[in-house]
Amino acid sequence: MSRFFSKKYDGLTPYVPGEQPKKGQKFVKLNTNESPFPPSPKAVAAGIKAVNGLNLYSDPLCLKLRQTAAGVFGVGAGNVICGNGSDEVLNFAFAAFCDGLTPAVFPDVTYGFYPVFAAQNRVPFVEIPLKDDFSVDVERMAAEKGTLFIANPNAPTGVALSIETIEFLLESDPSRMVVVDEAYVDFGAESAVGLIGKYENLLVTQTFSKSRSMAGARLGLGFAQESVIADIETLRNSLNPYNVNSVTLAMGAAALEDEEYTRANCLVIGKNRERTAEFLRSRGFVVTDSKANFVFASHPEIGGAEFNMKLREKGVLVRHFGRPERIADYNRITVGSAEQMELFEKAVDAILLETLK
Amino acid sequence: MSRFFSKKYDGLTPYVPGEQPKKGQKFVKLNTNESPFPPSPKAVAAGIKAVNGLNLYSDPLCLKLRQTAAGVFGVGAGNVICGNGSDEVLNFAFAAFCDGLTPAVFPDVTYGFYPVFAAQNRVPFVEIPLKDDFSVDVERMAAEKGTLFIANPNAPTGVALSIETIEFLLESDPSRMVVVDEAYVDFGAESAVGLIGKYENLLVTQTFSKSRSMAGARLGLGFAQESVIADIETLRNSLNPYNVNSVTLAMGAAALEDEEYTRANCLVIGKNRERTAEFLRSRGFVVTDSKANFVFASHPEIGGAEFNMKLREKGVLVRHFGRPERIADYNRITVGSAEQMELFEKAVDAILLETLK
Repeated sequence: MSRFFSKKYDGLTPYVPGEQPKKGQKFVKLNTNESPFPPSPKAVAAGIKAVNGLNLYSDPLCLKLRQTAAGVFGVGAGNVICGNGSDEVLNFAFAAFCDGLTPAVFPDVTYGFYPVFAAQNRVPFVEIPLKDDFSVDVERMAAEKGTLFIANPNAPTGVALSIETIEFLLESDPSRMVVVDEAYVDFGAESAVGLIGKYENLLVTQTFSKSRSMAGARLGLGFAQESVIADIETLRNSLNPYNVNSVTLAMGAAALEDEEYTRANCLVIGKNRERTAEFLRSRGFVVTDSKANFVFASHPEIGGAEFNMKLREKGVLVRHFGRPERIADYNRITVGSAEQMELFEKAVDAILLETLK
Repeated sequence: MSRFFSKKYDGLTPYVPGEQPKKGQKFVKLNTNESPFPPSPKAVAAGIKAVNGLNLYSDPLCLKLRQTAAGVFGVGAGNVICGNGSDEVLNFAFAAFCDGLTPAVFPDVTYGFYPVFAAQNRVPFVEIPLKDDFSVDVERMAAEKGTLFIANPNAPTGVALSIETIEFLLESDPSRMVVVDEAYVDFGAESAVGLIGKYENLLVTQTFSKSRSMAGARLGLGFAQESVIADIETLRNSLNPYNVNSVTLAMGAAALEDEEYTRANCLVIGKNRERTAEFLRSRGFVVTDSKANFVFASHPEIGGAEFNMKLREKGVLVRHFGRPERIADYNRITVGSAEQMELFEKAVDAILLETLK
């Protein structure tokens, strides 16, 4: 820290992203919930076509992408905002809809970036403990005053809420915003995008990083009524009107036009997830009922950090969160291709053999 | 605006980017200071190669790009930070180095985003009027308390400060940061990057949008001592650790490795700029001494807004700023290719013929 850094950021602790293998390191990479499949061939073609024209600025209105998304999701282009990843849209939501009078409210076990977004925007936040079965404590969320942030399915547990529950939360206090982060929705949960016409207090975010195989392109969308989108646009245009680059804009529109490809990949991931969960249970692991592209698992006889380290030694990266304490025995394992999961299973069996003598 | 929008943003007025022609519209586009040349062929090749691998996240450390930049600029990789455009780095600087006790200080005529960045971060700012000849009032800048933001060359005037003047400002108060925004430096001004070893209170930003023909890729760099870079990294990692996408990272490194291409293009733009300035002066325009890839010009008998509109009617887009009042008679004209400037000159002559009967 330099002596020039503003005191307002005292104690700000950044988010720590999952490990990225260094050049030359070979890992089965199951630690950051990426897709094992390349982007849609149509998206790839659109991206390659866009590279030559990069001397011109990207469209600050993101018009083509917003119109395409509007068609696919059955909303208007004015109901869509584009972000440099859905992280950017989520951060805008913390800025726009929280302040000293309106705290952010989210579960104690959820996407680790929420408390960081709150701290970065210097807004207070309240963490509502998950129930013992790792389900969201919906009643306590509903009773709490403030802007709700709900990852659905939740991370890193993978547990999903029903649309009825989302509606219950929306109706619990129509004077507050409810932000539903659907980063993992395509792998088996129900989307709330269809509710934006009905609820003025709903913002839904989605990402192209998971089901659409575009993590490295950085693209997220927000869906809401036009007045809410206008608020976020005010922030976006006061920060970086060209926040999404031209290659990503072109690829995003093409990816949306190739929903078959996305759906087929999600089906494969869904099957691999159920197989992986079954395998882990057969080996004595406790595994949550995940609807995402990862499983969340602990073993009664091996600590979470130890299991993580042993997997790493065998060439498999998965994600371990030391905090909060109650999930310290768990690991989050991205569901990859069948080949990747076989390598994972082999590594797990070898570890169990070594450890549980 | 929705009823949920935090009151803290009351009165926040976004930046208005230059017009982007709609699909099907054909303009000679000289309004947003883009390069008329495509990105370096080496950058294009690197970008195309990166598209297929976008299912994986981009490197949050931006290591290859930072190492390449370090080599080209003669600094260490720890002295470099990467932004989603230099706008993002500049915004981080307003956040990191300004607060209620430390206002932002910049000229009254400069990059229009500075007051927006200040407002968005809710930090006070002081505007120091340019002198009558549009040069920066260096003495008043030096005397003012707060973090200095200096575009060098300045926008939209194109007027450059010498390195000695930058050092004078750095030494005017070693307890404050000086941010030198070198978006246009490659077209004829001197860079201050070489000074970062000497001055702890210096942050220099550069962009790939102008001389490196990558406006649509979104890439900017910041250069400073490691402690200052660490401050900005704290903000970047609390907001969006994957802020730069993989295609742009790959292209940026390749573009830096092709400095010959950049330098050759800058030479052409420099020549075209002098020719355009000469042409305009020969037609009675007042033209500033620009060292950037644009000229800033007014005509004693045609208002700035009127001239802008008439050019638009003839298919030429240039940029007019209504505020502050003292530049309302000027237009900022991007220097493009020889062909583009010939079309511009023809349009100007036609307008003069029609207007000055």
